[in-house]
Amino acid sequence: MSSSATTLKGQPLDKGVLDTILRRRMFYTPAFEIYGGVGGLYDYGPPGCSLQANIVDVWRKHFILEEDMLEVDTTALTPHEVLKTSGHVDKFADWMCKDPKNGDILRADHFVEAILEARLNGNKEARGLKVEEKEEDPKKKKRKAKTEAIKLDDAVVKEYEEVLAKIDNYGGPELGELIKKYDLKNPLTGVQPSEPVAFNLMFQTTIGPSSNSPGYLRPETAQGQFLNFAKLLEFNQSQMPFASACIGKSYRNEISPRAGLLRVREFLMAEIEHFVDPEGGKKHTRFHEVEDVELVLLDRDTQLSGKTQTTKVKVGEAVKSGLIDNETLGYFIARIHLFMQRIGVDQSKMRFRQHMANEMAHYACDCWDCELFTTSGWIECVGCADRSAYDLTVHAKKTGAPLVVRERREEPLVIEEWQIEIEKKKFGPLFKKDAKTVEAALEATSQEQREKLAKELSDTGSITLEVSGVGEGKVKISKDSIAIEFRKRVENTREYTPNVIEPSFGIGRILYSLMEHSFWTRGTDGGDEARGVLSFPPTVAPTKVLIVPLSTNEKFKPLLKTLSQRLRTTGISNRIDDSSATIGKRYSRNDELGTPLGITIDFQTVQDGTLTLRDRDSTAQVRADEDRIIEAIKSIVDGSKNWADIESELPKFEGQEVDIASR
Amino acid sequence: MSSSATTLKGQPLDKGVLDTILRRRMFYTPAFEIYGGVGGLYDYGPPGCSLQANIVDVWRKHFILEEDMLEVDTTALTPHEVLKTSGHVDKFADWMCKDPKNGDILRADHFVEAILEARLNGNKEARGLKVEEKEEDPKKKKRKAKTEAIKLDDAVVKEYEEVLAKIDNYGGPELGELIKKYDLKNPLTGVQPSEPVAFNLMFQTTIGPSSNSPGYLRPETAQGQFLNFAKLLEFNQSQMPFASACIGKSYRNEISPRAGLLRVREFLMAEIEHFVDPEGGKKHTRFHEVEDVELVLLDRDTQLSGKTQTTKVKVGEAVKSGLIDNETLGYFIARIHLFMQRIGVDQSKMRFRQHMANEMAHYACDCWDCELFTTSGWIECVGCADRSAYDLTVHAKKTGAPLVVRERREEPLVIEEWQIEIEKKKFGPLFKKDAKTVEAALEATSQEQREKLAKELSDTGSITLEVSGVGEGKVKISKDSIAIEFRKRVENTREYTPNVIEPSFGIGRILYSLMEHSFWTRGTDGGDEARGVLSFPPTVAPTKVLIVPLSTNEKFKPLLKTLSQRLRTTGISNRIDDSSATIGKRYSRNDELGTPLGITIDFQTVQDGTLTLRDRDSTAQVRADEDRIIEAIKSIVDGSKNWADIESELPKFEGQEVDIASR
Repeated sequence: MSSSATTLKGQPLDKGVLDTILRRRMFYTPAFEIYGGVGGLYDYGPPGCSLQANIVDVWRKHFILEEDMLEVDTTALTPHEVLKTSGHVDKFADWMCKDPKNGDILRADHFVEAILEARLNGNKEARGLKVEEKEEDPKKKKRKAKTEAIKLDDAVVKEYEEVLAKIDNYGGPELGELIKKYDLKNPLTGVQPSEPVAFNLMFQTTIGPSSNSPGYLRPETAQGQFLNFAKLLEFNQSQMPFASACIGKSYRNEISPRAGLLRVREFLMAEIEHFVDPEGGKKHTRFHEVEDVELVLLDRDTQLSGKTQTTKVKVGEAVKSGLIDNETLGYFIARIHLFMQRIGVDQSKMRFRQHMANEMAHYACDCWDCELFTTSGWIECVGCADRSAYDLTVHAKKTGAPLVVRERREEPLVIEEWQIEIEKKKFGPLFKKDAKTVEAALEATSQEQREKLAKELSDTGSITLEVSGVGEGKVKISKDSIAIEFRKRVENTREYTPNVIEPSFGIGRILYSLMEHSFWTRGTDGGDEARGVLSFPPTVAPTKVLIVPLSTNEKFKPLLKTLSQRLRTTGISNRIDDSSATIGKRYSRNDELGTPLGITIDFQTVQDGTLTLRDRDSTAQVRADEDRIIEAIKSIVDGSKNWADIESELPKFEGQEVDIASR
Repeated sequence: MSSSATTLKGQPLDKGVLDTILRRRMFYTPAFEIYGGVGGLYDYGPPGCSLQANIVDVWRKHFILEEDMLEVDTTALTPHEVLKTSGHVDKFADWMCKDPKNGDILRADHFVEAILEARLNGNKEARGLKVEEKEEDPKKKKRKAKTEAIKLDDAVVKEYEEVLAKIDNYGGPELGELIKKYDLKNPLTGVQPSEPVAFNLMFQTTIGPSSNSPGYLRPETAQGQFLNFAKLLEFNQSQMPFASACIGKSYRNEISPRAGLLRVREFLMAEIEHFVDPEGGKKHTRFHEVEDVELVLLDRDTQLSGKTQTTKVKVGEAVKSGLIDNETLGYFIARIHLFMQRIGVDQSKMRFRQHMANEMAHYACDCWDCELFTTSGWIECVGCADRSAYDLTVHAKKTGAPLVVRERREEPLVIEEWQIEIEKKKFGPLFKKDAKTVEAALEATSQEQREKLAKELSDTGSITLEVSGVGEGKVKISKDSIAIEFRKRVENTREYTPNVIEPSFGIGRILYSLMEHSFWTRGTDGGDEARGVLSFPPTVAPTKVLIVPLSTNEKFKPLLKTLSQRLRTTGISNRIDDSSATIGKRYSRNDELGTPLGITIDFQTVQDGTLTLRDRDSTAQVRADEDRIIEAIKSIVDGSKNWADIESELPKFEGQEVDIASR
């Protein structure tokens, strides 16, 4: 992969040109633009909205329907307590500093990184070395600090480099120390920013009229699924494994979003929570269907050695070698790969990157991001993590709800263990108000301790137990109020907390990357400016067919309407363009909209009912009667045929659109 | 319409029984239930989620695709300024009081209403009159105050009745006065609640890290569409009329939601903004297609006379007589009617109620609600309002953005008028810093004033003009720096602000009402308890087909899988139930889930490949080979055939399910 992005045809991709087209055609637009706009908030116009709906539709078929997942629609409003338990209230934050002079708010890690990098570049310049442009990482979008050619001591260079290598590991206080130690100043004002403070990325609000019910907009859809686990398991007639899924908006109050659709404050997510038995190696019954899928992987070890070299490996082998932790995780990685393929993502611009140990949440055991290459570098578009039993465990602990699976054991489990039995009648009066505390202390003893206590009891007739807060921290219990014995216990039911494999999709990022991957420009011969094309696959293209009459002649009008209605009934979205612009201009407009097929109605249509069908990508045309043209469109849209098939079946047409086709 | 709700088969509808089924089958569930729940927040489980998706899908086809509407996806987060302009910050509020003793928060109007009604009922009781139960209105859900049989003076009764008749017209201060005047006390504590304060119903938050960017969650999707008007018009190649549409979540921070799915804090809306030229009577080109649609109407005059008698009238006549204000409004009311029919709403439980003058926003010129009858009375499910040019005008005024349509006039418009021309070279030096103010004052003069000023100028050689803030409030301008003449002006372009017709759908309310309308119970002979059925039309039913093997015999397994896969490929959602429950139990479960069709696989299937197909509503069955069964299912799901057609085409089957069918 070259370090700069290219179009579908390998041309250098000018993000500015593409963005102009996307906004002109209203794929997206800054929200509230007439009010000056709000950072990180965008609206989708008709083609963007339709593209999004089509991607979601494929997603729903590919994942939910194909695997009988249980789709839920949970609320975005979430009470404080839920996100306190999940850890988001305490940990879902970035560190920010304020410039005391101009009030600028800076993300602390990005600020430190930018200034130190600028100094290192200045040093290189001063030493006459080549300054390399780092691949831009939109996760760390920052103001570029101005480079001054100042030479640094070798020791300082080494120190800076070490700081940068572990920049993700610093907390707020450490970042503050670095700012002071290296006297890092905001280049805009020349002053040091304030001490970093934690800024929680959740939008906070109040639910109901009383101010004591704080809530947040969810930062992910996952929690709503975990909270419904017990009900979903019951709905699934207690069968394991199963998956739930949720498609909905999530919210993150980014400190200063600046990367267009790639870093927004309100975004559509599609998340799957696949609940699986942690025992038995997390096998997946359909793994054999995908084991030959070839993945492009960038593993943890390669990254640790400072490289970005990917390897191509079959998912079956990756799981076998332990590179991917388990079958279920591997299965979903392969399914994500196939989904991306299906919607038209450029396969040469896709990789799966394994999380480094320090990147993962502490509870996760493995995590792979599906990254797509764009003009902003490699973008995380899907995360696929094994979240272990973390979430269900913390919510169960907090609420007391049994978020567990109970299964009848085929073979009853026989357990031999030291058991403590209390003679309540004597025990109670003995300890009175402390009885519960002492009982809890007894319950808390380990098997080893119990074995010793049993010996003590039989040897001396009583035990001495440390119980903080009772008496002088120790109590004596004699054998008339307690018994400790080694006994057999038979368990017929197995109870376990499932582990969760979570494929989590950022639909907006996928959509934007797909637009870059589908974009190219037609040649400029004939004096025309380069004409942009968005070659979306027919399945996801916003509109499938453009219907154009040759001219504004009244004779065409009824034909347009009937044809449009017939296509619509067949479930094929279409638009009529009967404006007075030339056919070429009308097709150009639809190239920019990514409409894969065009039908021209001309005077011959009026006579014999035949139509011409145009392929967006090659601009080639065929001509046939309406039934055969509609049949062709249907087969292209449902993916059963491609344009080459149609060209081989229907007569080629070289007529009035020669001016376009020859360019 | 009787005053209490009935099932699809006319049985009395027990809301408790239905709710138990809906929650058992996870159509919906209180959100965050394991944390104790949060009022007004609900999650949809798999069948609810699917039902919702199917309703939205029909909606999208019926409105957006059918009329080439421009769908947009705009953000829920909205900055303060936008909602300040729209009027929501100042006016989107309810009045609330606090009980100083127990901290209870009460909606002031509901509180006054409840206490006065209780007193009136007490009076009737004391006089030995029958106390009528009022139809419950969920818009005014309130705690019922306890009735005490105390006789009131005739004058007091009259006063109370007058207050209740205009309860919707009181503001907070007036409600506060009523509370004091009549000494209204919270029955729970026996004390008067505090002075009412306005409680804005929008969820507030802060966008970005700085506290000076307040924002809200949108209370409707409309504003995002208005703000994009200019871009949408351009996208539509400047053609009028056109409509935009948006399907998305909206939020209202209800003071104390208590009506289940009918009054929630987060809900899915589907809104259309149809932009139309205010001149020419707001005609609609497709009106003739719907003019014969018969509507059940409850008009304003009938309501004013205190009645609820509806009339059945064709929409064409209603528009002709002026009952419905214009064709476009009438067109959409008819289309809403047809949509409701299509998704299976009980036509005998639907009416369109016209807003009373005091109910409408001050800018609206007509508004009709589509109301559905449920166990909570008549519920507003769709509003269809003519919002005039209000929204576009206020946003344009605030931002300066030209939210207008510019059209070339076919005939240029010739205007004769008094025009003022300023001789800048002399005018400027004459008034120096005040020049702009004086110019603005001149511009602001009316035609009548100008005529007088022209006479003054020609008579005296100068004019005297009042300009506040300049000189001593008057300035003198002589004819060497100004000219006032009666001239012709030709306008080739017409500029106007479109009016907006807004059909606005509360999807959750429609969904809940539809569940009530589809519900009934099978007879209880055979000693069984009544078994619930949800007779959703196949188009919107969550799952179309249940596949059940006769037993858990291994021979059936591969057949189940192949059949399920084949149906899925055909786009027909299905579920296999191969649990060990009896076939009857499995079908009962799916009656509650509203699955319209069932396929049984038995030993004959293994031999000859034939399947039985069961109709949920009649429990009748037919038997045929797989191809014919699938063909039958397809035609039922796409609505081209109904069960009677299938029964007449395929051989009847009376086999193992006789136990169910005969009940």
